[in-house]
Amino acid sequence: MAADVTRDNLEESNGGEEQVITPWEVSAKDGGRIDYDKLILQFGCQKLEESLVKRVERLTGKPAHPFLRRGVFFAHREFDKILDNYEKGQKFYLYTGRGPSSESLHLGHLVPFLFTKYLQDAFKVPLVIQLTDDEKCMWKNITVEESRRLARENAKDIIACGFDVSRTFIFCDFDYVGGNFYQNMIRIAKCVTLNQVRGIFGFTGEDHIGKVSFPAVQAAPSFPTSFPHLFGDSKDVHCLIPCAIDQDPYFRMTRDVAPRIGFHKPALIESLFFPALQGESGKMSASDPNSAIYVTDSPKDIKNKINKYAFSGGGATIEEHRKHGANLEVDVPVKYLSFFLESDEELAKIKEEYGAGRMLTGEVKLRLIDVLGKMVDRHQKARAAVTDEMVDAFMAVRPLPQMFS
Amino acid sequence: MAADVTRDNLEESNGGEEQVITPWEVSAKDGGRIDYDKLILQFGCQKLEESLVKRVERLTGKPAHPFLRRGVFFAHREFDKILDNYEKGQKFYLYTGRGPSSESLHLGHLVPFLFTKYLQDAFKVPLVIQLTDDEKCMWKNITVEESRRLARENAKDIIACGFDVSRTFIFCDFDYVGGNFYQNMIRIAKCVTLNQVRGIFGFTGEDHIGKVSFPAVQAAPSFPTSFPHLFGDSKDVHCLIPCAIDQDPYFRMTRDVAPRIGFHKPALIESLFFPALQGESGKMSASDPNSAIYVTDSPKDIKNKINKYAFSGGGATIEEHRKHGANLEVDVPVKYLSFFLESDEELAKIKEEYGAGRMLTGEVKLRLIDVLGKMVDRHQKARAAVTDEMVDAFMAVRPLPQMFS
Repeated sequence: MAADVTRDNLEESNGGEEQVITPWEVSAKDGGRIDYDKLILQFGCQKLEESLVKRVERLTGKPAHPFLRRGVFFAHREFDKILDNYEKGQKFYLYTGRGPSSESLHLGHLVPFLFTKYLQDAFKVPLVIQLTDDEKCMWKNITVEESRRLARENAKDIIACGFDVSRTFIFCDFDYVGGNFYQNMIRIAKCVTLNQVRGIFGFTGEDHIGKVSFPAVQAAPSFPTSFPHLFGDSKDVHCLIPCAIDQDPYFRMTRDVAPRIGFHKPALIESLFFPALQGESGKMSASDPNSAIYVTDSPKDIKNKINKYAFSGGGATIEEHRKHGANLEVDVPVKYLSFFLESDEELAKIKEEYGAGRMLTGEVKLRLIDVLGKMVDRHQKARAAVTDEMVDAFMAVRPLPQMFS
Repeated sequence: MAADVTRDNLEESNGGEEQVITPWEVSAKDGGRIDYDKLILQFGCQKLEESLVKRVERLTGKPAHPFLRRGVFFAHREFDKILDNYEKGQKFYLYTGRGPSSESLHLGHLVPFLFTKYLQDAFKVPLVIQLTDDEKCMWKNITVEESRRLARENAKDIIACGFDVSRTFIFCDFDYVGGNFYQNMIRIAKCVTLNQVRGIFGFTGEDHIGKVSFPAVQAAPSFPTSFPHLFGDSKDVHCLIPCAIDQDPYFRMTRDVAPRIGFHKPALIESLFFPALQGESGKMSASDPNSAIYVTDSPKDIKNKINKYAFSGGGATIEEHRKHGANLEVDVPVKYLSFFLESDEELAKIKEEYGAGRMLTGEVKLRLIDVLGKMVDRHQKARAAVTDEMVDAFMAVRPLPQMFS
């Protein structure tokens, strides 16, 4: 559905049927790899250059997150302007979110949250997290009740990422939409025609009217007055949105609308997709449990999934591997380590040794099993410690005790 | 915009281009009179028969309102079922509303409220009144702030109609949409496709997405769980909607959706349009101040407007008039008296004398000036007594002290 229109856009910019990236579909050309450089051109965002990463380190006085150093967050829209303003003492807030479609998150879901937590800690700024239970209720055809329950379950996983309750407001649309937020939804909706959302998102006449107007719901948190308990009626606070690049269409629309209703355009910092175990042709899929490592997986699950499903770029035989080395461009274990191995040195060493054929796939997988096992164990312990009272505290509509300090 | 599609419907049912009735457009064939019998066929509602009026009198132990006795409320959907249930002791609530597009109401605007007040008093039932400030902000392109201000001003005129605060909840969408109400909006929106609203309301690609999803906002108050402070989570309370017949498309859609999401279909009791001073070809128009008597008009305004603009069915000369009498079918003063003159006897007498040419237009107008002058004076006094505190009391989200007694 969404594909047709995105394909049209691609034809315009690339002259052929190629990769399709929308909030609901990610598919690379011929099942191959996603060409992110091309995606930057298609979407019209900017590449996140090394110089910006250095600037972040200088401004925050902290080493950049591995996701920044290693290009996981690889694209942006006016992130440089956010830093300009920050340097001048002007404030911003972070906005990210999740559509609570499944009981438990996979590692790909954690990426924006882990990165957002780093940004929050480094810049000491407030954060709003939108759980679009309304969206999932509409797209996945689950009941309102089930969608709200999933949102609360997902909130626990998000809180387990270590967010600071004194700087973080988490909300579900079904609970929070109303008042100033609803007023901003209407202000936004007034600026976006049916033809425009058909062009951006590919809606058709068979889609229901809730879907058609949902983009205004996802846009509204980009504007500070949607949160009067945080920002009063101030329109001057800028917004920075960390997200995977498939969400870019929503915020392209939002940025187009913003100046027409007196708001700053939200800035974006956008990540690659976390690849499926089977390879990089798409995102992990909640519908195929063997395509992803879940935060609820046991050590045995993790070991089995990686050994059985993680696509290897190694040689077909040991002899071949020793001779030609591994193809790191397609090797999933190396990609996963690039996301989650802490030490830059060890990562470089593994890539070198494995790429040269001196290290075997089995050895790399063993290291990955260890890294993910520890990470998932840490998450499970943190998640088990999240009480309903803590969820209530994060979701309370309240002024935040700490804002910009 | 809306016309095309409604015309399609008409072609199906009537085989020709005829009257166009939508929530935004009312135009009769060739500028002539609206054929309400045909409209009942087009819309698929029922004629409100004399036997139902008698039944209302029997059940309530009160004389029927003149609007009922005289066929101002002339059509319905399952009003008989509401009465069946009422007889068995099953409860219902009333839902009506207004789009606050102008500072002051005209007499046509008062019709549904005066009738709703009668129903509330006669049946002793709770009432919700929706002020669609969001709709007007979107359709009239006024700001959110201005639309909210108008809603509050209009609420004062509505309260001045004499509603019982212990049984009445008035709300503005911009303030009230959220929580259970928003959840019902999404439940409704999921059941209505873009093609369907294009068919019912005639939206086009140039319309903005707020308009496209608005029908779900107007539908939501038809379901009791949109008001948890009144009905808790009970789905068993039936809803009766008094409104002008141009609102029928919204509630046809709502009735289609209701059983699919586990609610009773709302019942409707629908009125004629209150004609413009210039004649019955359409509704009064807020954009032409001389087409209507406003509740803010002075006695002098009323006198001038009626004398100058009220379309007369009288003869062109006194001689002709004495000879042929007045054409009561097109005479606006008689129509206005049919709405607002209290005494059935006097009304019958005027019709007889005027129709026979024994009474002159000037005399009928004089009587109308007196009736409307007193009515508007009474309204203005009542309105002046409505304080901001009273508005707050009606709009407070609270259980109603009196519900079904």
